[in-house]
Amino acid sequence: MGEAFGLHSFGNDEALMALIDVANVACGFHSGDPDTMDATVALARKHGVRVGAHPGLPDLVGFGRREMKLNPEEVESIIRYQVGALTGFLDKYDMPLNHIKPHGSLYGMLARDEALMQGAVNVAKTYGVPVFGIAGSAHQRVAEREGVEFVGELYVDLDYNPEGGLIILRRPEHTDPGAASARVRRVLENGTVAAVDGTLLEIPFGSVCVHSDTPNSPEVAEAVRAALRD
Amino acid sequence: MGEAFGLHSFGNDEALMALIDVANVACGFHSGDPDTMDATVALARKHGVRVGAHPGLPDLVGFGRREMKLNPEEVESIIRYQVGALTGFLDKYDMPLNHIKPHGSLYGMLARDEALMQGAVNVAKTYGVPVFGIAGSAHQRVAEREGVEFVGELYVDLDYNPEGGLIILRRPEHTDPGAASARVRRVLENGTVAAVDGTLLEIPFGSVCVHSDTPNSPEVAEAVRAALRD
Amino acid sequence: MGEAFGLHSFGNDEALMALIDVANVACGFHSGDPDTMDATVALARKHGVRVGAHPGLPDLVGFGRREMKLNPEEVESIIRYQVGALTGFLDKYDMPLNHIKPHGSLYGMLARDEALMQGAVNVAKTYGVPVFGIAGSAHQRVAEREGVEFVGELYVDLDYNPEGGLIILRRPEHTDPGAASARVRRVLENGTVAAVDGTLLEIPFGSVCVHSDTPNSPEVAEAVRAALRD
Amino acid sequence: MGEAFGLHSFGNDEALMALIDVANVACGFHSGDPDTMDATVALARKHGVRVGAHPGLPDLVGFGRREMKLNPEEVESIIRYQVGALTGFLDKYDMPLNHIKPHGSLYGMLARDEALMQGAVNVAKTYGVPVFGIAGSAHQRVAEREGVEFVGELYVDLDYNPEGGLIILRRPEHTDPGAASARVRRVLENGTVAAVDGTLLEIPFGSVCVHSDTPNSPEVAEAVRAALRD
Repeated sequence: MGEAFGLHSFGNDEALMALIDVANVACGFHSGDPDTMDATVALARKHGVRVGAHPGLPDLVGFGRREMKLNPEEVESIIRYQVGALTGFLDKYDMPLNHIKPHGSLYGMLARDEALMQGAVNVAKTYGVPVFGIAGSAHQRVAEREGVEFVGELYVDLDYNPEGGLIILRRPEHTDPGAASARVRRVLENGTVAAVDGTLLEIPFGSVCVHSDTPNSPEVAEAVRAALRD
Repeated sequence: MGEAFGLHSFGNDEALMALIDVANVACGFHSGDPDTMDATVALARKHGVRVGAHPGLPDLVGFGRREMKLNPEEVESIIRYQVGALTGFLDKYDMPLNHIKPHGSLYGMLARDEALMQGAVNVAKTYGVPVFGIAGSAHQRVAEREGVEFVGELYVDLDYNPEGGLIILRRPEHTDPGAASARVRRVLENGTVAAVDGTLLEIPFGSVCVHSDTPNSPEVAEAVRAALRD
Repeated sequence: MGEAFGLHSFGNDEALMALIDVANVACGFHSGDPDTMDATVALARKHGVRVGAHPGLPDLVGFGRREMKLNPEEVESIIRYQVGALTGFLDKYDMPLNHIKPHGSLYGMLARDEALMQGAVNVAKTYGVPVFGIAGSAHQRVAEREGVEFVGELYVDLDYNPEGGLIILRRPEHTDPGAASARVRRVLENGTVAAVDGTLLEIPFGSVCVHSDTPNSPEVAEAVRAALRD
Repeated sequence: MGEAFGLHSFGNDEALMALIDVANVACGFHSGDPDTMDATVALARKHGVRVGAHPGLPDLVGFGRREMKLNPEEVESIIRYQVGALTGFLDKYDMPLNHIKPHGSLYGMLARDEALMQGAVNVAKTYGVPVFGIAGSAHQRVAEREGVEFVGELYVDLDYNPEGGLIILRRPEHTDPGAASARVRRVLENGTVAAVDGTLLEIPFGSVCVHSDTPNSPEVAEAVRAALRD
């Protein structure tokens, strides 16, 4: 959420905020700007939605979805900067920071590289919050090694490769709400998700992620919510 | 301080940090970057220097020294974002935020416009810290009206106009350490500073400001420190 | 046109391009990015639309609609840089540069300040193209003094103040196509436009400008085109 | 050259410009800004130095020395944008564009990937200029396949790996002028350069590259020039 940029609107924040419990809010590097962050945190508060930081790569044109070769110190510093910036707005509205979830290609980079993930975990320790990520990846391994709470995520609008990694697109596509709902029901019943090639993956999770810029994201979120309720 | 940017060094931070009590640290909008902020806060801690936030206009090429027409909400948001970002690094090193001092043209804009200054004061209230500024200007009026501590600054490397405003240069010039020292001694003796036209200005102050990018800033800082000690 | 930015779409370029003769294409400083510029020039070529450069202030978050205090050298350099960048894409598609029209607050700054306008005119001389602007303002005075062709513009989706200046909004509002059409008919009949207070302004023009980000801009453009045809 | 950024100076342009025949001028993405480009082109003209475009990755903080995953269209667009921008300044001073040489990590990416190099070659064709690069790499293969002139470069301030690739550093180190001179003499005598492990590499070249930000770059350039003269 909060991925508008200046006069450029983005996503479906107004509709989605009524359907979710937790929001990942952009912090200005891949998108978002100070006024958008203020408005997004205010909107979350109005709906009783908890807010986590969604720090991204410093690449506005690429929306943080183009991998960059950063060293571990740089990764920690850009996460620390962005999380701190978000807390400025959370403090304004008397809201706590709920968690940290890296964005886009940064999320993918940290899933594969423990040295990079260490930076996110160090920042999570400073704030005493959990990190959200992919179960079984470096996200979870480093968090648990360092005594930081880890929350696994289930994705319903992206495909998984056979190794359990996410196939991240530059622009998310229209997602069939029925398929999203079916994925949630199946994983709740037998703990597995089918990868693109049919491989059954075990995906333990504590949170279901819906991308705000999937064109029909509110519909997807409603389908997920209905499946969870059932 | 902390106005290096990526591979571009700037100022005389190493030398100055040994000579000062309080540093204003850039927060990434007019200059500075996450790694530089980390290194600058670490350097301040090593020297026992207290750290304030030095948020600037979003203009790297202009170094925040080109006025921009922002509305009060935008001013508050860019200050809040930058101050929050700095606290990420202060928290890492267990240091408190000491104060907020707007940078460059933002400082000048806020000295003249109470509606804009309100944004800085709102952020100072969130963090419970004083604002540094020009005595008698909107800096002081808004801070005191809102119950926020105000610390007046004396400048030794910039000229004052007859109205008590600062003549801000894009690039500070070499400053005569003797003149800086004389200005401090005089203001301590009789409370006045001479403007460019000779007008005597009353400048109450609680802090003396030395620009890190004055070419001979360490020499100027030493001269000021000697005058204060005497 | 061409004011999308990375994944952030903007305006109504596809629909408008079929309705216009000349497009002002953003050059990356207030909005637009290299890939968007390429796609926009290609779209213009497909529709036989001539392309002018629309250089703006270096302020993505503010969309070039927040005035900045730049000196004349800086104004010339940012215009030259952006116009040159656009010619890279025009050359790719074998299209000539049609004209230069400064964007947003830069346009307003140059209308009021001959020293700043000189920079735009210098670049227009380099490329041998006209400048588009406000008749009677510094736009016209400097262009004509320097032997550069000047094309006056009529605005149908912004209000004029009694001095003939435009009241520029951060976000253009819905425009009544009937009012736009009536303004064009009136000015064609008796050469005048009514300012917000009813003052009749003489607005000589060679081009009618429709903002692409007015929510109903294609409708406005159609109304203007019908009025001109009649 | 031209890698200053706003108030942040960089490199040794003044001293170097008197010692070289051809300059690679930064175009604003990895460093440089419009005023710096103007000043750098003017300085080159004063010294009779030919100017090539040195387009980089869009990463000011990383100085274009952090690899980014761009697709071929993006690479072509960022090169086209930057080369076009530079021609704005060359046209001002009546200078032709001499060549294109990608900068930093972009240079390395293009050396290894023909699809990416195609973008640079397409822009070179638009302008009818050669590309500078590493002999035997994708730089040369794609240029020659497309009928674009290729100029190989010899590096005297970076090490080669055994495969003939350059070991690019974030910050170039002090370079022994004697070693630089010896490398030039040796390659002129027997056509080979020793890689870090002693492997002898054949390096055909038409140009010797000296980095302006090597701390002692003017000394290195003088040593190279003396070796060539002898």
